[in-house]
This record gives sequence, C-alpha cells and structure tokens, in this order.
Amino acid sequence: MAASVPSKTVAGRFFEDFRLGQTIRHATPRTLNSGDASLYLALTGGRFAPQSAETFARAIGYPASPIDDLLAFHVVFGKTVSDVSLNAVANLGYADCRFLKPVFPGDTLSAVSHVIGLKENSNRQSGVVYVRSKGSNQRGETVIDYVRWVMVRKRDASSAAPEAHAPKLPEAVAVESLGEACPPIDRVVFDPELSGSPHRFEDYRAGERIDHVDGITVEEAEHQTATRLYQNAAKVHFNQFSEGQGRFGRRLVYGGHVISLARALSFNGLANAFHIAAINGGRHVAPLFAGDTVFAWSEIIETAALPRRDDVGALRLRTVATKNRPCADFPWREGEGFEPHVVLELDYWALAPRRP
Amino acid sequence: MAASVPSKTVAGRFFEDFRLGQTIRHATPRTLNSGDASLYLALTGGRFAPQSAETFARAIGYPASPIDDLLAFHVVFGKTVSDVSLNAVANLGYADCRFLKPVFPGDTLSAVSHVIGLKENSNRQSGVVYVRSKGSNQRGETVIDYVRWVMVRKRDASSAAPEAHAPKLPEAVAVESLGEACPPIDRVVFDPELSGSPHRFEDYRAGERIDHVDGITVEEAEHQTATRLYQNAAKVHFNQFSEGQGRFGRRLVYGGHVISLARALSFNGLANAFHIAAINGGRHVAPLFAGDTVFAWSEIIETAALPRRDDVGALRLRTVATKNRPCADFPWREGEGFEPHVVLELDYWALAPRRP
Amino acid sequence: MAASVPSKTVAGRFFEDFRLGQTIRHATPRTLNSGDASLYLALTGGRFAPQSAETFARAIGYPASPIDDLLAFHVVFGKTVSDVSLNAVANLGYADCRFLKPVFPGDTLSAVSHVIGLKENSNRQSGVVYVRSKGSNQRGETVIDYVRWVMVRKRDASSAAPEAHAPKLPEAVAVESLGEACPPIDRVVFDPELSGSPHRFEDYRAGERIDHVDGITVEEAEHQTATRLYQNAAKVHFNQFSEGQGRFGRRLVYGGHVISLARALSFNGLANAFHIAAINGGRHVAPLFAGDTVFAWSEIIETAALPRRDDVGALRLRTVATKNRPCADFPWREGEGFEPHVVLELDYWALAPRRP
Repeated sequence: MAASVPSKTVAGRFFEDFRLGQTIRHATPRTLNSGDASLYLALTGGRFAPQSAETFARAIGYPASPIDDLLAFHVVFGKTVSDVSLNAVANLGYADCRFLKPVFPGDTLSAVSHVIGLKENSNRQSGVVYVRSKGSNQRGETVIDYVRWVMVRKRDASSAAPEAHAPKLPEAVAVESLGEACPPIDRVVFDPELSGSPHRFEDYRAGERIDHVDGITVEEAEHQTATRLYQNAAKVHFNQFSEGQGRFGRRLVYGGHVISLARALSFNGLANAFHIAAINGGRHVAPLFAGDTVFAWSEIIETAALPRRDDVGALRLRTVATKNRPCADFPWREGEGFEPHVVLELDYWALAPRRP
Repeated sequence: MAASVPSKTVAGRFFEDFRLGQTIRHATPRTLNSGDASLYLALTGGRFAPQSAETFARAIGYPASPIDDLLAFHVVFGKTVSDVSLNAVANLGYADCRFLKPVFPGDTLSAVSHVIGLKENSNRQSGVVYVRSKGSNQRGETVIDYVRWVMVRKRDASSAAPEAHAPKLPEAVAVESLGEACPPIDRVVFDPELSGSPHRFEDYRAGERIDHVDGITVEEAEHQTATRLYQNAAKVHFNQFSEGQGRFGRRLVYGGHVISLARALSFNGLANAFHIAAINGGRHVAPLFAGDTVFAWSEIIETAALPRRDDVGALRLRTVATKNRPCADFPWREGEGFEPHVVLELDYWALAPRRP
Repeated sequence: MAASVPSKTVAGRFFEDFRLGQTIRHATPRTLNSGDASLYLALTGGRFAPQSAETFARAIGYPASPIDDLLAFHVVFGKTVSDVSLNAVANLGYADCRFLKPVFPGDTLSAVSHVIGLKENSNRQSGVVYVRSKGSNQRGETVIDYVRWVMVRKRDASSAAPEAHAPKLPEAVAVESLGEACPPIDRVVFDPELSGSPHRFEDYRAGERIDHVDGITVEEAEHQTATRLYQNAAKVHFNQFSEGQGRFGRRLVYGGHVISLARALSFNGLANAFHIAAINGGRHVAPLFAGDTVFAWSEIIETAALPRRDDVGALRLRTVATKNRPCADFPWREGEGFEPHVVLELDYWALAPRRP
C-alpha cells in the first residue's frame, strides 16, 4: 500500500516561501451571477438601490445592476487565501484598495498577487508579507487592486530571512483616482424616495457622526455560508473541531463578513453613498463570533469633489463596528487602543450623488 | 467634533406622523431573479410545479416559471416596514390582498402605501394605522394590492389625535376579482404525476380538512436569511442583543416566514393548488421562535367556479399552523381564543386546475 | 363538519405497494439555474474550476459552466424520496450510477424510477426495494441513471410477499461507459494555476492515498437548506419535534450532503479531478449530525485510460469521510466493520485531464 503523498495537497506557503517580486496566480476563477447577488443580499441585508434594482441602476447610468463592491472584493480576496494566508498568524491590514471597474452578473473574476514586501519579525518565528493583489474580469481588466499584509509563520525559525523591505503605502487613496468604477450618474433622476434618503453629497460635513442604529446577530451558518460563497477556505472559519482546541475555542467570523454587515447597517444614514470607490485602510480590532450582535457608526472624515465630475462627490468615512454594544455614543478609541467592544475600524471612500 | 446628526437615520414614523390620505413611496426597489427563486425554495421547501419547473409552467400556459406569490408578497411587504411599522407594537392583520399580475425573474418590484385609516387607542399611548399597499413592476402595473393594519406607538401620549377613521374591509376577496394573475391554464396537459397530485378543483369539498402531516423546524440562520432576502429590516427578527432584553428574550420569526412554511407544507394535500389568488385575512396568533417545529392543516371553506373561466377553480382555504404540535386532529380555536400551539390562521383563495 | 380525507396526502409506499417492473414518474420537475449553482457552492464550498467559472469551462471545451454533478444527482434523488423511501427504515446503497449528459443552468430535470428488485426480510416486517432511477432533461435525454436499494416497512407483516428478486449489479461501472457527460477537453489550455493543481491523470497511481486535510463543521440551517434545495422531503432531516422522540433524538444530515462536503474537501489534493463520471457504490456507515466536523481522505483504487479518448483519464477513487477526526492516518475499516468515526465510504470514477 502506497504511502501518503502530501505533496498533492496544499499546505500553504510559509514565510520562507515568499520572494520579493514574486507573482502568484490564484485558483479558482469565479463567475458571479445574479444568484450570488441574491445570496449576498440575503446574508448581509444590503438595501442600496443600484445593487438592488435593475431599474434604478439603469436610470442613473449603469448598464445593469452592479455586483456589490464588497462581494467582488471578498471573492478576489478569497482566491488569495490558499496561496498567501493559509499559515497566517494574523491578517494585519489593508491599504490602497481601489475599485476600478464595475462588476456585473456574468463577469468572471480571477486574481493575481505580487509580493511587494517582506519583513521577518524579531523573534524569527514569523514574518510580515505584503502583497498587492489584483482582481481581473474576463476581459483582463483590473476591477480591484489592493494591498494587504499578513503575519505568516516560518517553517523553520533558523532559516535565513530575506532582506527586509516594507513598501511605502498611501495613508489614503488620492481623490484624483476615485470613481473609475462609477459611470456618469444622472443625479436628477436619482430618486430619493426609492433610494431611501434625501441626503446628497453636499448634505454631509466633515466631523459629522452617524449612528446606524440597527444591530444584526450573526449565526454560524450565516458566516460560513457567506465565506464559502467567496470560496475563502481559511480553516478558522469552518472547522469547529480544530478551532475548539485553539486560541478562542470557537470558529472565527471572517473579517470581511463584518465589513459587509457594517456596510449594510450603514444604509441607515448613508443610503445614498451607493458605491465604495476605495478602501484606505481597515483593522480587525477584535474577533467576532457567532451569537454576537454587530452595531456600527460612521464619521465623515472628509468630503471631496471629484476632479472633472459634477455628478457625484466622495465621502471619506470611518465606519466603526462593535459587538454587543449599541453605538449611540460613538464608541471608538480608548487610550492607546480601542474601546473593548470595537471589532472593526474601516476607512474608505464612498460616492454619493450631488444635488441636482 | 461635530455632534450626532440623528436626522440622517430613519427613526420610523410614530402614530402622529401618519395622516389620512397620505401617500408613502417606499425604498428600495428590488429586482427578483432566478437566484431569489432558488434561495426562497431552499429556505421554505416549496415544491409546487409551475414555480419549480420552466417546462411545467410553459406547458400549462405561463410565459415562464413565475416567482412564488408569497416571495413577491414578502418583498412588497418588506419595503413598507421602515416607513410603516418600525415603531409598531403589533402587526394586527391583513385583508383584501389580491395578486393581480404574475411576477417573473427579471421583474423589479417597488411599493407605495396609502394611509386609509387611523384610530387612536383609548389609552392614548398608541393608535392603529391602516395602509393599503401596492406593489408594482417595472412597467407600473400593480402586481399585489393589500391592506394591513398595525398598532403604532405615539411619540407623545398627550399629542392630539386625528379623527378616528377605520376603513370598511371586505370579509373576503370577491370571487369575481380572482385570477387576474393567472394566465389561461391548459388543464389537459397539467400532468398529475409531475405536479404531485391527481386531485383537481372538483375533488375538493367545502368542510374537507387536510392534515399536511410534515413538520419543519426553523433555525435562526434560516428565518434571518429569508427576512433579509425580502429586505425587511424589522429589528425584532435580527437583533438578539436588544431582543434578549425584550418581551420574549429572543428574536421573533417574521410572520411571513411562517406563512411561507405553512404554504410549503400544504403541498402535501394541496399540490395542485398552484397559485394564491388572494389573501382574505391572516392572524399571527402566537410568536414563533427558532427551534420550533411548524406543522399545518387546512380546511376547504368554500369552492368557487370563476366567472368566464373553465380552466381553474378557486378553493377558499383556512390554513392553520401550529408549533411543536402535529395537526392530525386539526387544532384550531378553543373557547374565545385559539388552541395554545396555534401560531397562524390564514384565510386565502388558491386556484387549482379543473378536470380535463 | 367533514372528516379528514387522508387520501389527499402522500403517506408514501409501503413494501407491499411495490411491484417488480413497476414504473413511477416522480413529482416535481425542477429547473436548475445559476442561483442554484451559487447556493450549492455556498453550502458546500466547491472550488472545482469548470463549475466555478464560465471562462474556464468554455476554454476547456464545455459550452457553458456545468451544474455540479452532485447537485444534479441530489435533485434527481430528491424527487424519488416521496415515492420510494418515505417509509424507509434505511437507505442501503447505491450502484451503477452513471452521469450521461452534462446539466447546464436552464435545464429542467425530472425523474422516473423502475422497480427492479424486491426481497422481503426474514422477519416479515420489511423488505428491500431496488429501483433504477433516471433523471432526464427537458429534451428527454437521460442525464443520470443509477440504482439504489432501501429497506421499506411493510404496512402489514402478515401480508403476502412477492417472489424475491435481487438484481445483478456491477461491482463498478465499466471503464468503457465512462465520460459520456464530458465533452472533449482541451488539455493544453487546462490551466494548472487557475484550476489549483499541476497534477494530471498520469500523476496519480493506484494505491496512493491523499489526506484532504481540511474539516468543515455542519450546522442545522446548512444541511436543511441544502436538502430543501434538492426538494428532498424526507422528514428525518427537518423535523426536530418528531426526531427528538426518535432513534437519535436529533435531525439526521442527508447522506448526500455528506457526499457533497467530502467531494468539496477533496479539492485539496484532487483539484483537477473535475468531473464525476460514475458512482460505483456508496455506504453511509454512520449518521452525521449538526455540530459534527467532516474530514475526508481518498485512495486511488485504479487509474484507467478511456477508450478512444486522449484528453482525460479516469481515477477510481474511494473517498472516506469521518466526523470529528482528522484523516492524516487514513482511518477506514476496522475488523469486520468501520473505524468508529467513519461516516461515508464512496467508490466513484472521476475524470482528470491528461498531460498536454
């Protein structure tokens, strides 16, 4: 009887397996269709009008109802997991994430990552890997481009480390590069009753804080189904047998699912901020588990007119999500760290129609 | 740092915010596609043939497989929640609900409500609001038209009440107005083996009772996913943090989900009653919670030939659903009220093919 | 008030109700669309490239992305339940299951079963029923053909039994009849990075064992939703009220869901074994319950070139699934029976591309 041939299974890369400049094409390409959009909506509760209704999308200028920006992001992200973060100790951050083309039902996304930074940790047990990942559609057009960095275990602490290189990352995506995935929007026909809000770009002010009021409790079946929808195979989300013996004793909710829930909750107050143009940065401050109830609030960090566009403006938002704590008093940082119930801090640019 | 601007979030209308004759256009329009149909089927267990198979639907006379009547109803209902019942104490009833056009994958539904009645309660803490809601498709055709009434909190008990006005509602939808959403049906090709039953309209008799036998246990992830599919944002269904401190200590299953489960269970005995033409009235007698098992039985209240149609006949049905109690002995009323396990009483008209 | 009319509900056939040579056409036909594919993927975690991406499927030779073989199988199987196994004591086995045509979104499946064997048990309480079931598409082409046998209760132990007849079944599907559902595959463009593995047919050897490494925990909401997606109405999967009083005190996960999970897990090691051409046999060795974590490993039993085809080869696989036990040491049989954590043994033929 033959012995096991472990080489046929994917064990995931360790820190030593990455090389600066390396390019990794990821499996598996994925066609997103209207069924994925329905399921995503049902798992997160999204109500933004262009993603919900063909009629609304076409009226304002889209050729069809676009796939939710975060669904497309999660699918691209999901592909990178087996190659980049299967042996990750922690997902440290995102930066410079730009949405460059709208994704429509029928589009097929695939992903490629480039290793743009490597830095061994001082304990030599692990290192930080920086990758720039690009999601492309079936025409080869980049639809999403972002950087993330993860702490990855070394196979062998004594192995030699590459020269440290940490990429220079922008603190925020520049206003000039926002809006590429957003067609010209007809702000006159953008119907405030159908969209759920009369508030336009001009109605928001830097410093304004919005409590999104509602809370949503997460079940194991929900986050597992969502994470499988993205074909993200990270074991911490699915395997109670191993996680039961692990750090938390439980399965961890995929951080992207928390982002999606916070975004869906933000409809209550930001209903017209219909498109995420860029994610400047994101931090999963604490883990979320099934049974927890997610709340969220947002602060308008900055408002920006877009060069050469008078149809939409950009709101730079910091959305903070908590678990089991309503956000009427805007919980956030505390001393050096975060208020204990905070689970997510997300800094992003969303577009909203200007006044007609 | 700017203060909260609560005006950007939807707090929902209080009793004082409604005016007789008022018209409310609801957010968000919603395109229903085949993915919604699949997910609805998977969440409820529907097996009625025209909704399940394109071939069957086309053979009997539909241009395509129609979206389940109740899925369309829940989507229209869901839109009204933020504007009508966010501050509701109780959903009191439905009446005069007519299905006027079939809904097909690709159709976009939007909803408008008219306030047709207002009646302050004697304790002055709340009042009853009656709305007639209409769901329309992208061509502006009304597909569903119904009345519901809800008890809504007052913002301020001392505020003046409008003159009381309760609309006159029909006890049942008239036979003459049934069947508008049902195309001419070819009763000869309506295949009894494929549909799951040899029983035609003529085989049912007023007074006949049918135990639907099967039971179905509801999980939190299922009713939450279903309710989000309908974009119904009523917090009692999703927020364990707040509901845990509330009346029941738990999330409440959306009453419409109970109707859908009872309808799906009714396939066992009513497989050929393929279309809901009207809902005469419905009462959610007791709450349903995750973990409960739903059973159902139906009584044929009346059978009616339809004027100018010899293809289908109408069965007026009372479907009673229970929790954690099989229905072999047809549990229903008890004294002034209901047998303790009853959760739903639904009075509706369904169409079944006549004998070839 | 009229009495119950139980004849309108389906009580299911008892052993006496089957006759050798009998043909049963099953309800309800079912159109599978891209929403079903999305939901199936989200419930099981499938990542095989042709089923995931239109672009990949078309590049290698499919006219469109095919519906997962097991989704089609479960839908066909589901139809047979109400007519064949509603009163089953146990599902004893499958054999000679051949996939004869690919199924694409938009196809409508219906099912017919032929009784090919009957054998009363010596205790006269029950008997074994053998059926050959065929699933057909809307053009009347058989897409799946398989035999299963179940132990069915007798209505009356004293009733006369038919003459015993057990069909002769092949131990495995012959190599000559494999591949009918697989179009000619362009093995040159079959991209190993996109598919997730460089391993071709020629890289596998009889006797080779592959641990699929990952585990997946099953929730009640997940297996119920999957089983309803297949319109499989077997009560043991849905009704906690009755099952709570039954043999296990709990709902049983549909065995087909276990097969789907094992198949999805097998991606890690068998990513290029993209199509199930035949199932030689399958045994559900022990029940699976919600909360259990499924692991799996596979052994290559045999490799076979296909006559007249140089594009793909066939791997005969034995996939063993366990609950709550990783498979690094390949748990399987123990003495006369099975290692205690084994839940499934599946013997099947999968096709993989040959070397370019």
